[in-house]
Amino acid sequence: MEYRIDHALAILSKTPVVVRNLLHGLDEPWVMNNYGENTFSPFDVVGHFVHGEKEDWIGRTKIILEHGEAQPFDPFDRYAQYEDSKGKTINDLLDEFASLRVANLNELKTLNLEEEQLALRGTHPELGGVTLSELLATWVTHDLHHIAQICKSMAYQYKDEVGPWRKYIGIIPP
Amino acid sequence: MEYRIDHALAILSKTPVVVRNLLHGLDEPWVMNNYGENTFSPFDVVGHFVHGEKEDWIGRTKIILEHGEAQPFDPFDRYAQYEDSKGKTINDLLDEFASLRVANLNELKTLNLEEEQLALRGTHPELGGVTLSELLATWVTHDLHHIAQICKSMAYQYKDEVGPWRKYIGIIPP
Repeated sequence: MEYRIDHALAILSKTPVVVRNLLHGLDEPWVMNNYGENTFSPFDVVGHFVHGEKEDWIGRTKIILEHGEAQPFDPFDRYAQYEDSKGKTINDLLDEFASLRVANLNELKTLNLEEEQLALRGTHPELGGVTLSELLATWVTHDLHHIAQICKSMAYQYKDEVGPWRKYIGIIPP
Repeated sequence: MEYRIDHALAILSKTPVVVRNLLHGLDEPWVMNNYGENTFSPFDVVGHFVHGEKEDWIGRTKIILEHGEAQPFDPFDRYAQYEDSKGKTINDLLDEFASLRVANLNELKTLNLEEEQLALRGTHPELGGVTLSELLATWVTHDLHHIAQICKSMAYQYKDEVGPWRKYIGIIPP
């Protein structure tokens, strides 16, 4: 399925609503627990989304448009939210994510990218050469990956409660 | 995290809204494609949810309450939706799922289950002895598993579009 901005916008604009619907009003154990060492709780995921809105997608888009391959992207800190989210509630983060996302999608629309710009190249600090369209397609799959991760964290909290069904519920690690 | 009906209801009542928000208004390729042989597209998943509402969770709850271990559950057909969803649109299925889920949760609330009933035992045709609380906890994790599966199907459609980022986006199989 070829990358198309309208297709991508359809998903990207849904994510804050989907995540809010998944998490809003839940008791803390669903939101604050992860599924093992070095994994993200739903709270961590939303903080990670916020950090991405601030530091990743649109910033990198602009680097490609303005500097092409000459200026590598800054490395993205995947664990920044452990510090940044301190003192915030899940509702704070959901609100922050939603408003940053709206602003970023407005900025993306304003850029009015043409087909030929989507083929422009940038430099990822680890992956090397990438295109703008690959960056923007990754934004979509990154959303989907982390929505699924929220589901995984939540399901994990019932790993013992499901008894023998555990082997049928693939999202709970064996 | 111990099973509690109020905790579980909080998740179960969200799922139709979450799934609708994920899928409503998307172009067909996002909704109708799966991620390989014998996998579910988002359309298949919603049909599977509908079938579960009709044939699985509340039906098995009643079998446990009325017959205990003496009457094994009917086997659940995990592929029934391939036939049942024929001729329906994704919006038909989203509506059907939402209204069946509301009715089933109302029925669950009406049962007014006590702690001691949650420990009642039933017989799964493959897994053997299970408790009512295990069945009801599985309902929750089954929802979360399949919401994540919808995300997986969608992300998979961009498996080539993300270019070298593919190795960072764990939800896309290598």
